[in-house]
Amino acid sequence: MISQPTKANVLLVGSGGVGTMAAYALETGGKAEVTAVLRSNYDVVTKQGFSIDSIKHGNGIEGWKPTRLCNKVPNVAEEGIKPFDFIVVTTKNVADVKPTVDEVIEPAVTPGHSVIVLVQNGLNIEKPVIAKFPSNAVLSGVSLIGATETAHGKIRHDDSDAVKVGPYTSPKVSQEDSEKAAKEFVDIYNACGKVDAQFDSNVPFTRWRKLIYNSSFNSVATILRMDTTRMRISEHVIDTLIRPAMLEIKATAKAAGIELPEDIAEVMIRIDPKDTFFKPSMCQDIEKGNYIEFENIVGEPMREAEKLGVATPVLRTIYGILKGLQWQTMEAKGLVVPKWHEGSLYG
Amino acid sequence: MISQPTKANVLLVGSGGVGTMAAYALETGGKAEVTAVLRSNYDVVTKQGFSIDSIKHGNGIEGWKPTRLCNKVPNVAEEGIKPFDFIVVTTKNVADVKPTVDEVIEPAVTPGHSVIVLVQNGLNIEKPVIAKFPSNAVLSGVSLIGATETAHGKIRHDDSDAVKVGPYTSPKVSQEDSEKAAKEFVDIYNACGKVDAQFDSNVPFTRWRKLIYNSSFNSVATILRMDTTRMRISEHVIDTLIRPAMLEIKATAKAAGIELPEDIAEVMIRIDPKDTFFKPSMCQDIEKGNYIEFENIVGEPMREAEKLGVATPVLRTIYGILKGLQWQTMEAKGLVVPKWHEGSLYG
Repeated sequence: MISQPTKANVLLVGSGGVGTMAAYALETGGKAEVTAVLRSNYDVVTKQGFSIDSIKHGNGIEGWKPTRLCNKVPNVAEEGIKPFDFIVVTTKNVADVKPTVDEVIEPAVTPGHSVIVLVQNGLNIEKPVIAKFPSNAVLSGVSLIGATETAHGKIRHDDSDAVKVGPYTSPKVSQEDSEKAAKEFVDIYNACGKVDAQFDSNVPFTRWRKLIYNSSFNSVATILRMDTTRMRISEHVIDTLIRPAMLEIKATAKAAGIELPEDIAEVMIRIDPKDTFFKPSMCQDIEKGNYIEFENIVGEPMREAEKLGVATPVLRTIYGILKGLQWQTMEAKGLVVPKWHEGSLYG
Repeated sequence: MISQPTKANVLLVGSGGVGTMAAYALETGGKAEVTAVLRSNYDVVTKQGFSIDSIKHGNGIEGWKPTRLCNKVPNVAEEGIKPFDFIVVTTKNVADVKPTVDEVIEPAVTPGHSVIVLVQNGLNIEKPVIAKFPSNAVLSGVSLIGATETAHGKIRHDDSDAVKVGPYTSPKVSQEDSEKAAKEFVDIYNACGKVDAQFDSNVPFTRWRKLIYNSSFNSVATILRMDTTRMRISEHVIDTLIRPAMLEIKATAKAAGIELPEDIAEVMIRIDPKDTFFKPSMCQDIEKGNYIEFENIVGEPMREAEKLGVATPVLRTIYGILKGLQWQTMEAKGLVVPKWHEGSLYG
């Protein structure tokens, strides 16, 4: 009898398009067992499994399920279950709305053991997680994937699956251990042979590079409800908003010690396929009435710039508008009430 | 037999809420005969007249019509009609969409005779009009009125009717003649005894003062689709967008020689009644799918600032966004097509 290597015990939080395809890659690679936390799609997937059309794994995948499904984040200590080796978070990261990511995953984290992988947008998303779990390795995952949940449990994966994974710095975890954890995650993710996971030796560079796109296209798309193809055809949206925002991010990155390529703005302006009329993620979120993760995508770079003495007038105004949009979503969801309160400044 | 003084022959272009109430004040004062140009409401008003509820003139006014109705701007020369003494324009002023105001009124203007009264928002709206009709007095009308056409021919006039009228400077018209024309208009407008028309001896001051409100509240309301009460309750919309935009206008006005009161921003922030949840005009326009007059409300002050060396980072970004919104309206109305064209910059 040949001994089987133990599979990594993975918790996946956030089973939309990105999360489900991550679970699929991890499970089919054979080096991981995935417990997926589902919310709105729990009932459907429990009964029927996922239905997947994937550019990487094939079309017509019906009734697929990861090893375990649950409808809330398990409490490892209380439930006496096996500690998770990796906790992969693919939810939106909405810093200004409770519960925050660190609060969501808390019951599942085994201190000193679970590696936390944040496959999410934005800057400084690791800070509250590292603050709460200083003895756990925390990894940055920057995903380039086109995957959408078109209906509960139905996933359309129509563009690539590349993810860069590298270590953040945690106070009580050695750089060596963090890197080892990142490389192990890359290994179990790549095991299926159909995706492209890479070890990221320069997380800040990767994060700032992606911010070039997100702070500009993703933000402006959200404000205008406009796809990136139309922005490019209009030209003035690029000239008056997109490029200036990109250059502010580039200047801020430089002040933070990250030298992005000289032509990064011109490259990013043309990075979406020309004729897809693609609406970036926050635009899709706001059109669905969901919260937007603007605090990490615009707020944090803006605050970094402020600390570093870099002027970001375009980002500041974009931030103010996005915050106004978020306020309206909060009102729609009952989090704020449009009434004058005691001490109202502008009554 | 007592001789009757001749009534002023007035053409009114733009019979929405503001225009109809102007026509009503002018006609009922007895010193003017009004020919009103109607578009969408022409058929209804021809048959039934206007139906008006007015805070100044009384409720339940039914079947009222000005002296003459027409469904396009009359061609005075071709039709051999009596020259108009005043041409009052109360349409929106959408500078980036044809036909522009000067083109619309052209057939009705008798050179050297007709006084053109622009009761419209924004800066530099007189420039193309004066360029085309250099021998006609052109007047600035800044209106403070709450009047809405709630259905074709139905007017709800629920807040004040104050208008400030003063002369612009025309190359071939003496200052004296322009002032005389403005005072005459004030006189015929006030004749009904129910409204408050005033001669405006400082048109630039009045225009820049109103821009403080329009460039900020009107613009941001359009972007966020948000009323001014909610903006004030949220506080951050005021702090990050409204006040900074106001202060940019104040600084630009100052550089242009117009000293607005020191506390103008704080006054304007609180100028709307607290509990009306009022959506300014451009916000109403965009919600109806109409063009917005952002070029005169934001674009022109921004370009003035540029000439004068005043930094307007907030207005610049707001301008870029409003232009993106206008592009989408243009697309909806077939004026632009979202296709790559020869020489596309960002293809």
